[in-house]
Amino acid sequence: MVKLSENRWGKSGVRISKIHRSDHEDSISDLTLQILLEGDVEPAHIEGDNRSVLPTDTMRNTVYCLAQDSLTDDREAFAGLLCEHFLSRDDVTRAEVSISERLWSRSGPTGFIGGGSETRTATVAQGSGETGIWAGIEGLVVLKTTGSAFVGFPRDQFTVLPEAEDRILATSVTAIWRYSNCPSDTTATWEMARSILLESFFGEWSASVQHQGWLMGTALLDAIPEMEEIDLHMPNQHHLPFDLSRFGMEHKGTVFQPVSEPYGDIGLTVTR
Amino acid sequence: MVKLSENRWGKSGVRISKIHRSDHEDSISDLTLQILLEGDVEPAHIEGDNRSVLPTDTMRNTVYCLAQDSLTDDREAFAGLLCEHFLSRDDVTRAEVSISERLWSRSGPTGFIGGGSETRTATVAQGSGETGIWAGIEGLVVLKTTGSAFVGFPRDQFTVLPEAEDRILATSVTAIWRYSNCPSDTTATWEMARSILLESFFGEWSASVQHQGWLMGTALLDAIPEMEEIDLHMPNQHHLPFDLSRFGMEHKGTVFQPVSEPYGDIGLTVTR
Amino acid sequence: MVKLSENRWGKSGVRISKIHRSDHEDSISDLTLQILLEGDVEPAHIEGDNRSVLPTDTMRNTVYCLAQDSLTDDREAFAGLLCEHFLSRDDVTRAEVSISERLWSRSGPTGFIGGGSETRTATVAQGSGETGIWAGIEGLVVLKTTGSAFVGFPRDQFTVLPEAEDRILATSVTAIWRYSNCPSDTTATWEMARSILLESFFGEWSASVQHQGWLMGTALLDAIPEMEEIDLHMPNQHHLPFDLSRFGMEHKGTVFQPVSEPYGDIGLTVTR
Amino acid sequence: MVKLSENRWGKSGVRISKIHRSDHEDSISDLTLQILLEGDVEPAHIEGDNRSVLPTDTMRNTVYCLAQDSLTDDREAFAGLLCEHFLSRDDVTRAEVSISERLWSRSGPTGFIGGGSETRTATVAQGSGETGIWAGIEGLVVLKTTGSAFVGFPRDQFTVLPEAEDRILATSVTAIWRYSNCPSDTTATWEMARSILLESFFGEWSASVQHQGWLMGTALLDAIPEMEEIDLHMPNQHHLPFDLSRFGMEHKGTVFQPVSEPYGDIGLTVTR
Repeated sequence: MVKLSENRWGKSGVRISKIHRSDHEDSISDLTLQILLEGDVEPAHIEGDNRSVLPTDTMRNTVYCLAQDSLTDDREAFAGLLCEHFLSRDDVTRAEVSISERLWSRSGPTGFIGGGSETRTATVAQGSGETGIWAGIEGLVVLKTTGSAFVGFPRDQFTVLPEAEDRILATSVTAIWRYSNCPSDTTATWEMARSILLESFFGEWSASVQHQGWLMGTALLDAIPEMEEIDLHMPNQHHLPFDLSRFGMEHKGTVFQPVSEPYGDIGLTVTR
Repeated sequence: MVKLSENRWGKSGVRISKIHRSDHEDSISDLTLQILLEGDVEPAHIEGDNRSVLPTDTMRNTVYCLAQDSLTDDREAFAGLLCEHFLSRDDVTRAEVSISERLWSRSGPTGFIGGGSETRTATVAQGSGETGIWAGIEGLVVLKTTGSAFVGFPRDQFTVLPEAEDRILATSVTAIWRYSNCPSDTTATWEMARSILLESFFGEWSASVQHQGWLMGTALLDAIPEMEEIDLHMPNQHHLPFDLSRFGMEHKGTVFQPVSEPYGDIGLTVTR
Repeated sequence: MVKLSENRWGKSGVRISKIHRSDHEDSISDLTLQILLEGDVEPAHIEGDNRSVLPTDTMRNTVYCLAQDSLTDDREAFAGLLCEHFLSRDDVTRAEVSISERLWSRSGPTGFIGGGSETRTATVAQGSGETGIWAGIEGLVVLKTTGSAFVGFPRDQFTVLPEAEDRILATSVTAIWRYSNCPSDTTATWEMARSILLESFFGEWSASVQHQGWLMGTALLDAIPEMEEIDLHMPNQHHLPFDLSRFGMEHKGTVFQPVSEPYGDIGLTVTR
Repeated sequence: MVKLSENRWGKSGVRISKIHRSDHEDSISDLTLQILLEGDVEPAHIEGDNRSVLPTDTMRNTVYCLAQDSLTDDREAFAGLLCEHFLSRDDVTRAEVSISERLWSRSGPTGFIGGGSETRTATVAQGSGETGIWAGIEGLVVLKTTGSAFVGFPRDQFTVLPEAEDRILATSVTAIWRYSNCPSDTTATWEMARSILLESFFGEWSASVQHQGWLMGTALLDAIPEMEEIDLHMPNQHHLPFDLSRFGMEHKGTVFQPVSEPYGDIGLTVTR
C-alpha cells in the first residue's frame, strides 16, 4: 500500500524591494522569500482535486500586498505575519516562510551600494596589433531611490511602457578606461575613479541610463588627465512597480519587483 | 573636447518559447535574444532628450509580437527580420540581433528532455544515527506541450491566476529514493527508474504538479521492489502566455515567456 | 552550560575521472564526491586537540587511491567501501559518502559528449558598421580518452610540465562562423557543422589543442561552401593524472583529477 | 586556400593571493589573471610542431615565480612585467595580460572581510511539526593571514599533509541560530551577532576550523540570551603555498594558490 507521507508546496524566489521613504533619508529592504505550506492535500495528489491547493501565484501576490503596509526591518515579524495569514486557512497545517536579505551600504540619503561582486581590473597589451594600458571596475552595483526619469521617448504599435518622472535606477556598472599615460600611482587613480563614478551616479539627476552614463563618463575624463577614453556598460536592473490595483489597493510608490531578465542593455564610449 | 564615440542600447535576456503545433507532433523553439541598436542619439546622452530612444521594453514586446507569425526554425531569418524592423526607424543606424537556442531532445510527439545538467546520485551512510542507501537523479529537465491542467483551485482576495485546462508543464525533476535492499545491479535499476519517470511524466495526464508527482512516485514504487520511499522535488518552470491582446493581437497558444523566478516549489514523499 | 551537540567534517567537491579501458571501447566515470564524518571530537573543538581529526586532505587522497582498484560503475558499492574504510577508525562514529555523477553520451569507442549546456547561436547585423550573418555552437563539451598528445614544446626555467604522448583531451568547443551567403536551410547546415566538428575531434589524432582546432576548422571550411571564416575557442579542461606514487602505488593511466582552474585558453581563426 | 588568420593561446583563471606582510599590518592581493599570447605558430597548428608553443602550464608557473619579488599593488606594473617577460621570446609577437582583483575590506591588522555575497536570513515556521524562529547570516567571507594552525592530527597511509603552525585561514561562514524567545529588536540582535562572529574569528587563535567554530559559537551563546542553539558551517577556502622549490626558489610565506575544490567541509552545532 503506497501512501503520501509528506507534502509541501509554495513559492520560491519571490523577490521584493520595498523603499521606506522618509523626509531625510530612504532605506531599502531587498528580500527574496520562500513560502512552503503543508496541508490536507491527499485528494490533490491522488485524485487531482485541487480544492485545497492554494495557487503559488496567490502566495506571491500575498507577499507584495501585505508588504505595502506591514513590511518593516523586522524580517522575523513579516515572516510570522505571512505564516499566520496562510495558517488561517483550514486546509493548511503548517507554514514556513524564509527570507533572505541582500545587504546594501548607504551612500547618501537616497543612494545604496550593493557590494560584493566588485572587482578592479587592469589589462596591458604589448607587441604587435593593438597595444595599451586599460584599467577598470566591474560589478559596481548601485541603486538610487530617486533622481532618475525616463519620459519623452518614441512610441510605436508595440510600446506600452508608461512614462516615469521619478523612478528607481539600479545598475551594475562596468567601466573600462584607457590610459594615454600610465598614472604614477595606479591604485590612487583607480580609487579616485571609483569615487567619481559614485558621486556622479548618486549626485546627478538623469533623464535615462544613457544620460546618466554620459554624465559619469565626462566627469571621469574631466578629473583624470591620463584617461583617454572610457567605455561604460550599464545594464538596467529593472525594479517594476508591482500592480496592486488588481487587488483594490493603491500603489504608494514603495513596493517593487526586481527582475533579472530581460534587462535593458546600455553601453557607451566617451572619448577626448 | 569630450565626445560620444560609440553608443548601443537594447534588450538582453529576452526569453521566448514558441510551440510549433501540428497534428502529429509539436516542436519547440526555446530562445534567448539580445537586441542591440545604434543610432543618432547624441541628444539623449548629452541633453537628456529621449525622442530617439526606442524603449528597450518596446524591443522586448516586438520579439513576442513578431514571433507569433514569423518565428520558424530558421533563426537567422528571424534575427534578420528583427534587424529590418528596427532599421526601418529613421533614428536607428545599426541593428544587431543575437539568438541563443537551448536544445531539447524529443521524447514522443509532445515531450522534450532538456539535457545537460542531469546527474546520477548515490549516498551511503553507515555507523550511528541514520543509515541507509539512497540513489537518485537530479536535474532531469522535462517539458510537455500538452497533457497538464490546473483548475478548480481555491480563490481568495489575492488570487488572479486564470484556470488552465491545458498548459505547458516544465520542471527539473529531482528524485531521491531509499533502498530497503540494494539491488544487485544498481546501474540497471537507476536506468529503469529514469525511464519510468519519463514514461509517467510524458504519458500521464495530470491535474497539477502535485498530481504528476504522485503518478511518477507510485509508478516507481510499483516497478522497483527494492525502493522503499521516494522523495520528489519538482519546481514549476513557468511558461507564461505572453499577453498579445495589448497590441490588438489574439494569442494563438504558441508564444510563451519562460520565467526563472519566482517559481512554484512542489515536493512530496511517497512511501510503501 | 554550552555543549557541542553535533559535529561533522569531511571533504566536498572531490572530483575524479576514471577511465575504464578495454580493447574494444573505453568507458568513463566522472564523479564528484562528498565525504562527511562524525566522531568523538569534542577535544578538537573545545581544547584544540587534533588527535582524532583525520585531515580532509587524507580523505581526498583516499578516494583516488581506492578508486584505482575498486571504482566500478556501481556507485553505491564505492560509497559503501569508503564508509567502511573511514569507520574502521576508532574515532569515527558515522560516515556518509555522496556521489554525484556527470553523465556523458558515447560517441565512438573512445569519445564522449557531455551534453547539456550546448546552444545553437545566430547573429545578424545590418546597417552601418560591420554587418553580416554568423552562426555557431557554444558549449559543445567533448572528451576523448586517447588520440591526443603534447610533446616537443619549448622549455624554460619555469617549465615542469612532462611530455605527454597520449593524454585525455577534453574541451568545451565554441565555434562561430560567418556566412558569405546564407544557406537555404540554416538548420540543416548547422547540424552538418556540428557533425563535422564531432567527427574531426573524435576521429583525428592531434599534437595539441591548436592542432586539433585547425583540423576542425579546415574540415568545416572544406565541407560548407557558404562558410567564409570560423573562429574556434577551445579551453583545455585539464584532467591531471593523480600522483599515486606518494602512496607507493603505480599510476595505471586510469585515475585523473579534473580541474576547473586555471585552464589553457586556446583560440584560432581559420579563413578562406 | 584555407589559412590561419588569427591565433592566441594562454592561461586563464590563474588565481594568486599574495600576502604583503609588515610589522604593523598585512595587506593582501587577491588576483585572477589571464595571459594571452600570439606568435608565429603556424607550424603548430598545421603540422603539429610544438617548438614555438610555450606551455600554458609554464605561463602559470611564471606568474607565481615572478609574483614573489615583483607583485605590488600596482596591477598595471605587474601585467606589464609579465608582457615583457613573454615578449622576450622570439616566437611571441604579442602578449596581453589581464588582472581581475577581488577587493577585501580590512578588519584589524591581519583580518579581511570579502564582502558581497553576504545575506541576512530569517525563517519562521508555525503549525504542526517543527516550529520556531531562526535567524542567520550566509556568505560572511573572512580571511586572516595569521592566528590559525593545524598540527597534531592523525596520519595514515594516505596522509601527506604537512603540519602547519601558522597558516592562512579563510572561510565563508554560514551561521543559523534558533531563538527561544524572539528578541525585541531583531535587527540590532542580528548586527550584534555579526560583530561577535567577526571579533571571535579575527581575535581568537585557533587550532583548527573546528576549534575556531566552537569559539565563535560559544561567544554567540554567551552574549545573546535569546539564542538557544547555533549551527555553523565553515567550508575551508584553502590557500595552498605554491611550490617554488621546483624552480630553485625559497617560499617566503607570501605566495599562495587559492583553490575552489575540493574543500574541507566543517560543520558543528552548539547548544545550551
